[in-house]
Amino acid sequence: MYLEDFPVGTRWSAGEFTVTAEEALEFASRYDPQPMHTDAEAAAKGRFGELIASGWHTAALVMGVLARARLFGDTEVLGLGVDQLQWPTPVRFGDVMAVDVEVVGNRPSESKPEFGIAKLKTVARNQRDEVVYSMISNCWVPRRPV
Amino acid sequence: MYLEDFPVGTRWSAGEFTVTAEEALEFASRYDPQPMHTDAEAAAKGRFGELIASGWHTAALVMGVLARARLFGDTEVLGLGVDQLQWPTPVRFGDVMAVDVEVVGNRPSESKPEFGIAKLKTVARNQRDEVVYSMISNCWVPRRPV
Repeated sequence: MYLEDFPVGTRWSAGEFTVTAEEALEFASRYDPQPMHTDAEAAAKGRFGELIASGWHTAALVMGVLARARLFGDTEVLGLGVDQLQWPTPVRFGDVMAVDVEVVGNRPSESKPEFGIAKLKTVARNQRDEVVYSMISNCWVPRRPV
Repeated sequence: MYLEDFPVGTRWSAGEFTVTAEEALEFASRYDPQPMHTDAEAAAKGRFGELIASGWHTAALVMGVLARARLFGDTEVLGLGVDQLQWPTPVRFGDVMAVDVEVVGNRPSESKPEFGIAKLKTVARNQRDEVVYSMISNCWVPRRPV
């Protein structure tokens, strides 16, 4: 697949994931050891009333869904960066998230014309249809050979 | 600590981390199973000539350094989102990264005056002083009680 195969407006339902307490605690203890993510007693007294998942765990779980969905088949797509990553709603243990992707930009590279940059907007919603995660990522994608 | 305690221009050296092959492969197999991160043979033939770490693993490792640095002491700081997350240089196994943070924005919330939003620019550089990761994060921080 090439940049030309997914014009602006292309959409995918990429898949779902569940945030389990065990995995959320393991991730947070290693990568985000803040009381709101790791200390049940402190979290119960905090602003969310219970433990919430690290936003970086949500980001990683979303990436797992995207990678396994193989939206681009065998084509290697390199992430250059992300604009506007947001965590508007806390993720609670047991939440089930659906991940949707839409192409919001698609342009050839100016410096390397055999590549282009696709902008993908990825949104994860929980079982209450609340957006828990959104990002616009910039991906480096090969163009169709002329 | 309160929003007022770290004006724009405040800087910290937050710490270092090393990307080990074992941890990078474990992370990628779970959260970013693309051949460039998990398949040594495919990666050897790819554009980087070897396996590289998932950018989301770098993000998680940077978060680990930030959380353990306790830049804000006991104050709970909530990440609202990130602007301009970039991975300009691939992370190779064994690389050692230093993480620096600078306050680039600091303003009271309009809707909840007892809180404010600090913008933190975080940069990770490898042992060759190449920037491998940068982000500007928006953090929700309590203001000093009047």
